[in-house]
Amino acid sequence: MTRHRHLEAYIRSVRPQFEEMLGQLVELPSVSSDPACAEAVARTATVAAQYGQQLGAQVQVVSTKGYPVVSGGWQAGKHYPTLTIYNHLDVQPAHEPEWKHDPFTFHKQGIDYRGRGTTDDKGPALTALLAARYSVEQGLPLNLRFLWELEEEIGSPNFQDALKQRGAVPRPDSVLVSDTVWVSRHRPAISTGLRGLLAVRLTLRTGTTDIHSGLVGGGARNPLAELCEAVCTCVDARTGHVNIQGFYDDVVPPTAAEMKQFLASGFQSAQFKKAYGLRSIRTDNRADLIKRIWTSPTFEVHGLAGGHMGPGVKTVVPPSGDLRVSMRLVPNQHPAAILSRLKAHLKKHHPDIRVEVDGQLEPFRGVTEGPHARALHQAVRTGFGKTPSLVREGGSIGAVALMARAWKVPILFFGLSLPEHGYHAPNEHFDWTQASGGIRTFVEYFSRVAALRAT
Amino acid sequence: MTRHRHLEAYIRSVRPQFEEMLGQLVELPSVSSDPACAEAVARTATVAAQYGQQLGAQVQVVSTKGYPVVSGGWQAGKHYPTLTIYNHLDVQPAHEPEWKHDPFTFHKQGIDYRGRGTTDDKGPALTALLAARYSVEQGLPLNLRFLWELEEEIGSPNFQDALKQRGAVPRPDSVLVSDTVWVSRHRPAISTGLRGLLAVRLTLRTGTTDIHSGLVGGGARNPLAELCEAVCTCVDARTGHVNIQGFYDDVVPPTAAEMKQFLASGFQSAQFKKAYGLRSIRTDNRADLIKRIWTSPTFEVHGLAGGHMGPGVKTVVPPSGDLRVSMRLVPNQHPAAILSRLKAHLKKHHPDIRVEVDGQLEPFRGVTEGPHARALHQAVRTGFGKTPSLVREGGSIGAVALMARAWKVPILFFGLSLPEHGYHAPNEHFDWTQASGGIRTFVEYFSRVAALRAT
Repeated sequence: MTRHRHLEAYIRSVRPQFEEMLGQLVELPSVSSDPACAEAVARTATVAAQYGQQLGAQVQVVSTKGYPVVSGGWQAGKHYPTLTIYNHLDVQPAHEPEWKHDPFTFHKQGIDYRGRGTTDDKGPALTALLAARYSVEQGLPLNLRFLWELEEEIGSPNFQDALKQRGAVPRPDSVLVSDTVWVSRHRPAISTGLRGLLAVRLTLRTGTTDIHSGLVGGGARNPLAELCEAVCTCVDARTGHVNIQGFYDDVVPPTAAEMKQFLASGFQSAQFKKAYGLRSIRTDNRADLIKRIWTSPTFEVHGLAGGHMGPGVKTVVPPSGDLRVSMRLVPNQHPAAILSRLKAHLKKHHPDIRVEVDGQLEPFRGVTEGPHARALHQAVRTGFGKTPSLVREGGSIGAVALMARAWKVPILFFGLSLPEHGYHAPNEHFDWTQASGGIRTFVEYFSRVAALRAT
Repeated sequence: MTRHRHLEAYIRSVRPQFEEMLGQLVELPSVSSDPACAEAVARTATVAAQYGQQLGAQVQVVSTKGYPVVSGGWQAGKHYPTLTIYNHLDVQPAHEPEWKHDPFTFHKQGIDYRGRGTTDDKGPALTALLAARYSVEQGLPLNLRFLWELEEEIGSPNFQDALKQRGAVPRPDSVLVSDTVWVSRHRPAISTGLRGLLAVRLTLRTGTTDIHSGLVGGGARNPLAELCEAVCTCVDARTGHVNIQGFYDDVVPPTAAEMKQFLASGFQSAQFKKAYGLRSIRTDNRADLIKRIWTSPTFEVHGLAGGHMGPGVKTVVPPSGDLRVSMRLVPNQHPAAILSRLKAHLKKHHPDIRVEVDGQLEPFRGVTEGPHARALHQAVRTGFGKTPSLVREGGSIGAVALMARAWKVPILFFGLSLPEHGYHAPNEHFDWTQASGGIRTFVEYFSRVAALRAT
């Protein structure tokens, strides 16, 4: 049997096991942001560790102040290089009314696997795990490890704790992160950077209780209207341009070569709108849209709490408001610097408004040149039969900046999610085409990384 | 026994009955805006009708498409004039966390009566009823009637239906509305006008579902930010100035004589702030503040629904937002004209935003001159021993404009609520000082109105 036919036979044979494991994991509602799911998150760590052990890996469930991290792998030899694959096994909440099935019941329909966490990131995690087991069984001269986080969806607050436990989470020679989304199902995409995040709450209190607007309206301040005004001084809602002084100072625009790559990714404005159900967008120009979602920072309003939210209008002047905002940041911006610029802006224009930070993540620039980048490019061509495009990721993975700082090793991205998979959205799914192509790609990449040592 | 001593003896003797009836009514949670309270609202009508009957009145519970209206009175003689006293027996919701007692359990503490509806408007309604009974028993040549609405707090949507039933709700020769608030407990206040209202919801839909802001942020429109922008184009949140073209065109500013009266009302900026628990207000200037709350229209934001309201920040771009806004209008403005100006403004500046009307009430200018106004002025002096001030009411009573249009008779206002009574606020209360002074005032006013016939 040729090497190729041997791998294809493995892929076919492993499909039931993949589906069995994915189904079990999906049915554990590991929503890290919901305290009611604490037991399911903990159980997910235990079950995932067992999967690793069943496949012959040595696995540790590494405690932190929050949820644990699952760290495991196969030792091929002390003198061989080590490659760690990062995934996460916690998931987004799934309260959206649009779900057609119970999000935590696994549904298999032909090649489609439906349920919360199938594509983000339980499916890709199991794909990488089964690929690693194959490579290990082939005797590859590479120490393959996996690192599964359970707090990615809440901004990785305790991941650094885990990284400090060097015995359980050893420093590898390179990292492959598998938690990103392709631009089009027709062309594989390799992400080369992540946006960061600064999430804040702006609160304004002008009274103590709801007051009938007939009694005080006109004289009383309206905290909701003033918070709306703060939004308007911070951002032009129509264009998205941020008016906080110095906000764009550290932004590095994409190079012409990068833009060329981005434009070759298969990104289409119409498909973008369709995939995310957007009725209209800020621009239909492809290049402008790409810059906006991959290489530009943003200022988003997520909610304004306070006042009356129920049916109809209740004519009271509310005593306070609480505006939920976040800014996506791009490489070379830093949350701390942006926070101080925001604070200066508010101090000048809205001195009564208080700022509380709800989360911050550094943006990240991945490795795009050198032997690992070339190996990944070739592996994807082999795995999916198509040349991958280099893209950026508009989202953030908190753990990545932490691994970069702790380990100072090449970190590369190869995700398997498709835009139509419903990443962070209702009716999330994954499919066997992506999983099987993923196994092929990972196996090829592991071989090429193992071979680097010899070159 | 002198006439004075006879009335004082009646007032003393009737106090237990007043407290008994008020307690029973307060313990019926007649929240007209809450469908769960439908039975309590209906029961309130029945119990109130029984009270009238027990006091010798003929009473009808007048059906409408919504909650009924209670209409009753005593016939002194066909050729005597008829005076109708308007009150309402529905109440505001009472979900505020600041309530120290259950809002629908009646608490009597010395002269204070605590519970939702005590001051707005069950206490004043019973005060007027017991005064009317006294005057009837004295053989006053005046047909005294009462008209109790059960949908005032939801904008009187079916009150016009009731007014059309002329047999059950006969046209009187004048109306006294008892549902307004004094400016200071130290000086009685007679309201001479009400603000109107235009309540609208502005909705904007730009997508179909919550989308992870990392995936679309920058490209996707943010409906909440755009609704904030609509607030900013409509109103200067800091000053309260409305920027909708033509918004102030029909406003009639108060005359110098009116302002003199308003300034003599005992209105104090510091007390205003304290009474309503406001930390800071738009102006501390007394004259400016009076103009703002009594004679100027407003634009208030009551809530922005959509997006994430729970704890923390959820970094999604929401698909839609729903802004709850209302405008208080002043005499000579009309809700229909303001609505068309608002629509023109939105069409020009925010063409995607949809407008839905949630309620509209005409502003109202009361009778300030002539025999009824003089009679009321004298009656208040007798009842409370102090010269009343002429003020305006910043709120709206939908029923008033409807009675004015249907009956074209003088409508006067005399309310008994104090600023510290918590009108539309937590820990609502009423007190016997206001009730007993109210009985004195009403009895005196009824005598004077009866006497008008002879002059």
